[in-house]
Amino acid sequence: MEKSRPRLAIDMDEVIADAFTAQRLWYKDTHGYRWTEDELKGHHLGDLATPEHAAGMQALLHEGHFFADLEVMPGAKDALKFLNQHFDIFITTAAMEYPASCAPKFQWLQKHFPFIPALNIVFCGHKSILAADFLIDDNVRHFQHFRGQGILFSAPHNLNVEWSPRVANWKDAVAYLMQQHPETEAP
Amino acid sequence: MEKSRPRLAIDMDEVIADAFTAQRLWYKDTHGYRWTEDELKGHHLGDLATPEHAAGMQALLHEGHFFADLEVMPGAKDALKFLNQHFDIFITTAAMEYPASCAPKFQWLQKHFPFIPALNIVFCGHKSILAADFLIDDNVRHFQHFRGQGILFSAPHNLNVEWSPRVANWKDAVAYLMQQHPETEAP
Repeated sequence: MEKSRPRLAIDMDEVIADAFTAQRLWYKDTHGYRWTEDELKGHHLGDLATPEHAAGMQALLHEGHFFADLEVMPGAKDALKFLNQHFDIFITTAAMEYPASCAPKFQWLQKHFPFIPALNIVFCGHKSILAADFLIDDNVRHFQHFRGQGILFSAPHNLNVEWSPRVANWKDAVAYLMQQHPETEAP
Repeated sequence: MEKSRPRLAIDMDEVIADAFTAQRLWYKDTHGYRWTEDELKGHHLGDLATPEHAAGMQALLHEGHFFADLEVMPGAKDALKFLNQHFDIFITTAAMEYPASCAPKFQWLQKHFPFIPALNIVFCGHKSILAADFLIDDNVRHFQHFRGQGILFSAPHNLNVEWSPRVANWKDAVAYLMQQHPETEAP
């Protein structure tokens, strides 16, 4: 009989879906300016733009279909396929700020991560509502009242944030998670 | 300083939103037949319809906007307003079978329950992912791996199901919840 598996909650944007690059490209195409790596470090894109441009970016996100064509983050597909053998994976994304994003996000997941059952998808606001052993996210605010272990996934905006454990990419994330796993060896 | 409040998760359809009556009316308008109370007892509507009619009903639910105009369940608004003073309320609805329902369900909640913050809305599949002290739902399957106390909200389809506690309506639900509350008296 299969033993109970640890439960792993995984965020979407900047963790498995590259919303950051798409927003950066949209800004360059729309306003002709490409932010440098130095400018991006420690900032959300909305903070770098003028208020007017930030409002345009918000409107883009509210349209929802922006989320339909995002690239998959490097290594995410293979990592989740592997982790899926050892953890119960839930995709847990903060969609309530952009309710129109739910349907495109759902379709995106079905397309790129068909091995994650639809019933394991969660669109939420506060992630303190999640009952999971681990949560991989690029925003430490979601760890504040989360009852399991928060794992910070590096993104330009969080590079100055203090949090441990932090993982730089999916290779790091798999290594960390398999170290924590009660029953399996690292791959 | 405010003490930590118990967390209450509440389902939508048949608990705060009357999807049942709307489906029953749609069936009568579309197929000319009105199910009797006796026929409904212990059955989901989809099981009573012919396969062809059930498929039409599924299509209706998949369109999503069906969920935009549902009536609020009797007493739900006042009950949630009251409970909101004593519990941290999350609305937790199984939307993944009908992903197009997310946006209309979100708007419905904003319209009828504006005092529930958007960040306290959860669209999920399996409700075992919820970290809450109580879950009010009309489907006992959601209680199976839920770590808190499941409270069955009576609906025609669940009248033959054994579960305790069961509440017949929102008056009952408030009375039960306030009995369980660690710090307050019944209203």
